[in-house]
Amino acid sequence: MIELLLVGVGAGNPKHLTLEAIEVLNSADLILIPRKGTGKDDLAELRRAICRDVLSDGGPRQHEFDLPVRDRSTPDYLKRVEDWHDAIADVWAENITAQAGPSGRVAFLVWGDPSLYDSTLRIAERVARKLPLQITVIPGITSVQALTAGHVIPVNGLGAPFTITTGRRLRDFGWPDGAETLVVMLDAGGAFEVLDGQHYDIWWSAFAGMPEEIRIAGRLSDVAAQIIDTRAAARADHGWIMDVYLIRKRP
Amino acid sequence: MIELLLVGVGAGNPKHLTLEAIEVLNSADLILIPRKGTGKDDLAELRRAICRDVLSDGGPRQHEFDLPVRDRSTPDYLKRVEDWHDAIADVWAENITAQAGPSGRVAFLVWGDPSLYDSTLRIAERVARKLPLQITVIPGITSVQALTAGHVIPVNGLGAPFTITTGRRLRDFGWPDGAETLVVMLDAGGAFEVLDGQHYDIWWSAFAGMPEEIRIAGRLSDVAAQIIDTRAAARADHGWIMDVYLIRKRP
Repeated sequence: MIELLLVGVGAGNPKHLTLEAIEVLNSADLILIPRKGTGKDDLAELRRAICRDVLSDGGPRQHEFDLPVRDRSTPDYLKRVEDWHDAIADVWAENITAQAGPSGRVAFLVWGDPSLYDSTLRIAERVARKLPLQITVIPGITSVQALTAGHVIPVNGLGAPFTITTGRRLRDFGWPDGAETLVVMLDAGGAFEVLDGQHYDIWWSAFAGMPEEIRIAGRLSDVAAQIIDTRAAARADHGWIMDVYLIRKRP
Repeated sequence: MIELLLVGVGAGNPKHLTLEAIEVLNSADLILIPRKGTGKDDLAELRRAICRDVLSDGGPRQHEFDLPVRDRSTPDYLKRVEDWHDAIADVWAENITAQAGPSGRVAFLVWGDPSLYDSTLRIAERVARKLPLQITVIPGITSVQALTAGHVIPVNGLGAPFTITTGRRLRDFGWPDGAETLVVMLDAGGAFEVLDGQHYDIWWSAFAGMPEEIRIAGRLSDVAAQIIDTRAAARADHGWIMDVYLIRKRP
């Protein structure tokens, strides 16, 4: 049986790795590194840097493979994502079988934490329908934690709830009923424009936890344009961007 | 000026420590270890174990001090907590000044992550009104991540939001409008009894991430009584308990 190790490696800072993550990666027989294609090469390179810098003697054997591209012609968003996960699971299964054979410990490095807005667990479940598979998850620091650490703020109000959502949800459905604090991930840019910025404060970070980290905070109406401009410029500079933000209703 | 280092050390497993946390703790001049009094001695002992096992040569100098007790006679919950944070901030300021003098790097080990349902940042803000203080936050693995890793589940539905709340809020206000997934922390026990268990699935862990970890999952109506009994027995065994759970509406 294959033991699949899904290892959270944090938000891009190699120092986010936990002792557990390092121990488990070193114990693997094989590390598989998916390549997402042009423009995302920084991410594959970050994975390589982690293996090089943090693992003993460069770590176990590593094998890179290309991921399929999402079919943008499928109109329904969820259906498009489900189809894409199916296609990725096929490629994972092929590479696991070709590289590891019928048994062994096969690790994937997962950005942030495998539980949070990440497709790895959903893909692994599909692979488990094709191959005998035991899945182990190692938690990692998320960009949400890097965001709040950088801004030195708690995520929740005192004894109060908060909601984590996506840019798409905020743009399509607006501010969730009853929420005081909203954390927004996976925003393609500026979903907060649906809000009346007078009534909210925002804490925004790009590349949270990395040396390139950029932070902007203030009343949303005061800083929204600055965030949108800064994001566009940073994205042009790096070829990609990872940003996350927290918005609170003003008292 | 004092540099206050609030270091997330994870959910109780010393292997949750990140390389960054270890580096920052080793760089401190002093580690302050608050004692919460009888029944919580396991927690101070866990902090000592982390310093002993993970830091170079046992780490920097450590000083333990007793925290004030919360005044249970104040009727309003939030007021009671605010007063308690004020009292703790006084004790922090006294101990920082007495032990570190006017400058130096003073670290606190914080369970989980300093941003998430933790009073450390709120206390540090109060201390900063008394002493010149620069605050640095180092993120750590939370019990929510240990919960989802142990159960091998994602926290969010595909592209869907989720809400993190407290047992008190669930008990007082019921299921939040519009939520599909709810993570509940700081439950004094069984707040999920306000829900009609037929319509929900639950994933529950006590001591998530620690060797004593206990996990129960299933339809809430099937496992609610088992969770309540298991929790009471584990609490009696250990003298304290730390549990967390995720509830999803059934499709």
